[in-house]
Amino acid sequence: MPGLAPDIAERLSRNPDGLLPAVVQQHDTGEVLMLAWMDDEALHRTLTTGRATYWSRSRGEYWVKGETSGNRQWVREVRLDCDADTILIKVDQEGPACHTGTRTCFDDGLITQELP
Amino acid sequence: MPGLAPDIAERLSRNPDGLLPAVVQQHDTGEVLMLAWMDDEALHRTLTTGRATYWSRSRGEYWVKGETSGNRQWVREVRLDCDADTILIKVDQEGPACHTGTRTCFDDGLITQELP
Repeated sequence: MPGLAPDIAERLSRNPDGLLPAVVQQHDTGEVLMLAWMDDEALHRTLTTGRATYWSRSRGEYWVKGETSGNRQWVREVRLDCDADTILIKVDQEGPACHTGTRTCFDDGLITQELP
Repeated sequence: MPGLAPDIAERLSRNPDGLLPAVVQQHDTGEVLMLAWMDDEALHRTLTTGRATYWSRSRGEYWVKGETSGNRQWVREVRLDCDADTILIKVDQEGPACHTGTRTCFDDGLITQELP
C-alpha cells in the first residue's frame, strides 16, 4: 500500500519519535482548536481521506478525530511551516473540538488577563 | 530571583526536554504565525515582560522574538490547553513573523489544494 507521497515525506522534519505537532484551526473563524501529533501515516490518511487523523501518544494508536465522539474534523487545507517541522490543519469542526466539551482546548486556559 | 508562578508551574505538562510547544497567533486576524518552544523560564519572561520569549532548540538559548530582526511580538493573551501541554500565545506581530520574510511560517507551505 503506498503511503505518504515521497515529495512530502522527504521534506518532513520529525521529532525523535517520528512525529510532528499539528496545529488545528477552524478554517473560517480562525479559532485555534487544539494541537495534536502526526506521523507520516497519519498525515497520509488525513490527506487522502479528508478526515483529520492523528497519532495518539497516550494510547499508541491512530485516531480519526470524532470517530467515537461524533465531533468530526473535515479537512480544508494542510500546510507545512518553513522548517517542515510543524503542520497546520485548517478544518471544519463539528461541535466541540475538546474532550471537555468546550469548543477549543484553550477556552478554559487563560493564564493572563493583563500584561505589562 | 522568583521564576514562573508556582500555580502555573505545577500545572504544566512538559516534554522530556522540559519544553512545551507554543502556538503563536495574531490576536485580531487569527492568523497562525508560527510554532515555537517554551520552558518555564521562557513562559515566565513572556508573562512578565509582555514580549514573546522562546527557547531555541537549535541554538540552546532564549530568544526574544524580534530582538535582532525588529519583528517583535507584543503579547496580548496566554492560554494553556486542557492538558496543559500546549501554550497558545496571542500577539500583535510587527512585520513578518517568519525568518523567510513571509507574514507567517505557513504561507509557502500548502501541500493540499483539493481534498476528497
